[in-house]
Amino acid sequence: MTPNVLFAAGAKQWATYEAPLRRALDRSGVAAHLATELPPEEVDYIVYAPGSAVQDFTPFTRARAVLNLWAGVEKIVGNPTLHLPLARMVDHGLTQGMMEWVTGHVLRHHLGMDAHILHQDGVWRPDVPPLAGDRRVSVLGLGALGSACAQMLATLGFPVTGWSRRPKHISGLRCLSGEGGLRQTLAEADILVLLLPLTPETENLLDAARLALLPRGAVIVNPGRGPLIDDDALLAALDAGHLGHATLDVFRSEPLPREHPFWAHPGVTVTPHIASETRPDTAAQVIAENIRRGEAGEPFLHLVDPKAGY
Amino acid sequence: MTPNVLFAAGAKQWATYEAPLRRALDRSGVAAHLATELPPEEVDYIVYAPGSAVQDFTPFTRARAVLNLWAGVEKIVGNPTLHLPLARMVDHGLTQGMMEWVTGHVLRHHLGMDAHILHQDGVWRPDVPPLAGDRRVSVLGLGALGSACAQMLATLGFPVTGWSRRPKHISGLRCLSGEGGLRQTLAEADILVLLLPLTPETENLLDAARLALLPRGAVIVNPGRGPLIDDDALLAALDAGHLGHATLDVFRSEPLPREHPFWAHPGVTVTPHIASETRPDTAAQVIAENIRRGEAGEPFLHLVDPKAGY
Repeated sequence: MTPNVLFAAGAKQWATYEAPLRRALDRSGVAAHLATELPPEEVDYIVYAPGSAVQDFTPFTRARAVLNLWAGVEKIVGNPTLHLPLARMVDHGLTQGMMEWVTGHVLRHHLGMDAHILHQDGVWRPDVPPLAGDRRVSVLGLGALGSACAQMLATLGFPVTGWSRRPKHISGLRCLSGEGGLRQTLAEADILVLLLPLTPETENLLDAARLALLPRGAVIVNPGRGPLIDDDALLAALDAGHLGHATLDVFRSEPLPREHPFWAHPGVTVTPHIASETRPDTAAQVIAENIRRGEAGEPFLHLVDPKAGY
Repeated sequence: MTPNVLFAAGAKQWATYEAPLRRALDRSGVAAHLATELPPEEVDYIVYAPGSAVQDFTPFTRARAVLNLWAGVEKIVGNPTLHLPLARMVDHGLTQGMMEWVTGHVLRHHLGMDAHILHQDGVWRPDVPPLAGDRRVSVLGLGALGSACAQMLATLGFPVTGWSRRPKHISGLRCLSGEGGLRQTLAEADILVLLLPLTPETENLLDAARLALLPRGAVIVNPGRGPLIDDDALLAALDAGHLGHATLDVFRSEPLPREHPFWAHPGVTVTPHIASETRPDTAAQVIAENIRRGEAGEPFLHLVDPKAGY
C-alpha cells in the first residue's frame, strides 16, 4: 500500500523541500504519496518542523513516525500528545557546514585575525601566534556535530577535550563526562565550543559559576543553542575582562533584537544563525531513507530518546 | 675531529638559536664547536640567514655546506662566491604554522567572516555560506608548505587544485603544471593561495594578464613572497571590482611603509609577515641533523637546486 506522507513543516519549507523530497523518495524506491493536506487518520509519516500547524498528534491514529526536518527537537520532544517515534535530522550537509564554521572561527580566534581585520592602521606588529598545539580547545557536546568539529580541530593540531553527559570514546580526542569532567573541561579551555542540545539540564549550563572556571582570556564560540549560556553572566564575565571574546550564532530570541547589548559589545561577535543549516537535498535523502526503513520494517535512523530530550 | 660550525646569522638570531642549537647538536651526538667567530679556513659548516656579515664565501676553503635558517633562499642562492651545497630550512613548526594561517584565512573568506567582524550593526542577515565543496581553491606552489596547506584544505572539503612548475602527484589534490596548467588553475580559483618560492621566473607571476584570468570576485591569499604579485596590477584589479579581496602577509618592502596604499584599501588585509616563522627548537633539530649527516658522509637534507633557485 502506498504510504501517505504529510508535510507539516509550513508553506515556506514546502516550497524548498517538495522537489528534493519527491526526488529522494523516487530514488529510494518508495512510492509515497506526499502532500501538505491529508486526513489525519490516513497519515503514515509526518515530516515536521517547529512552528508547524500540527500541535496535537492525537488524531494521527495510524502514523508510524514523526520525522523532524531539523537537528534540534526541543520544541517538539516535550509535546504531551506525541507518543510516536520521533527522528531527529542528522544531515551530512548540516554537519559539514557546522564543521567549517566552527573550524573557521576557532582558527580566527587562535590566529588573532580580528586585530588585522579591524585595525589596518599602518603599524607593523609582527607578533606570530603560537602553534595550535599550544592552544587548548574544548567542545561541549559530542553528538554528530560536536564530534565532527572536535575531530577536525584535532586534525589541525589542537589538543581537544570533548565533554558529553554520558561517557564516550572518540579517536583523537580526550573525552570527559559528568560534572567533574565538565569542571576540568572548562578549566582547560582556551577556546570553548558549545554544541550541546537544549534540554532542561543544559539550559543556562554556562552560568556565572561555570564561566568563572574558564581560564582568563578564554574565548567562547556558540553555534549550539542560545539558552545554553546565561546572557547576563556572559556579559559580566566579558566586562570583567575574565573572558576574551564570545562569538555567538544562536540566541534566546531570533532575530536577535537590535537593542540587545550583544550587538554593540566589542567583546561579542553576533552571527545571524548561519553556522549551518539543513540542506534540502541531503536532508530529503535522510527523510526518504527513514520512510523506506519504516515500510521495510527496519529500525528508524536517529531516533530521539524522549527521556534524554535529544 | 670536532667540526667547527660558524653561526653567521646575526647577533639577534644568536640570542634565540644558541641554546636550541647546542641542545639539538648534543642530542644528535655531534660534538661540534659552535661559535659566531671562527677563522674562515677552519669552518666546516655555516649556519646562515640573509643580512649576514658573511657575503663572500671564498675564504671558507674547508666548509662542507651552508645551512640556511629560513625557508626562502632568494637572497643567497645567486651569490657568485657560493660554490658550496646550500640547504634550505624545512621546519615542521614553520609548515604547521603556515598550514594554520592559510586554513584560517581561506575559511575566513569562504565563510564571509569579515561582514560580521566589521559590521555589528544590529541587522539580522541570515545568509548561510555555501559548503566548502562548492568553493574552488587553488594553491600555487607544491613544496613542503604548499602541499601541506593544499592537503588540509582538501581534508576540510574544498576542491583543491595545486600548481607547480614541474609535474607532481599529491594524494587528494588535482595537480597541474606548466603554463597551460597555470592558466587553468587561475581560471578555476575562487580563492587563490600563493606559496611559490621567489625566483626570476616567479617574480611578478601575478601580473595584470594573469590576474584577469581569475574568476570575478576571486580572493587572493599571499603568505609566500611579496614580489610574486605586481602591486599596481593587484590594486587595479581590486578597484575594478574584478577581485573580491586580497589578504597579504608579505611585501616587497617590510615593514610595509605606512603610506603604502595596501594599508588603507578596503579590499586588502595586511598582516605583518606572521603567517609563519621558523621555530627555534624544531629548526635547530634540522640544522643538527644536516651536520650529523655531513659528518657521517650521508646526503644533506633539503638541498637547493641552484639552477631552479629553490
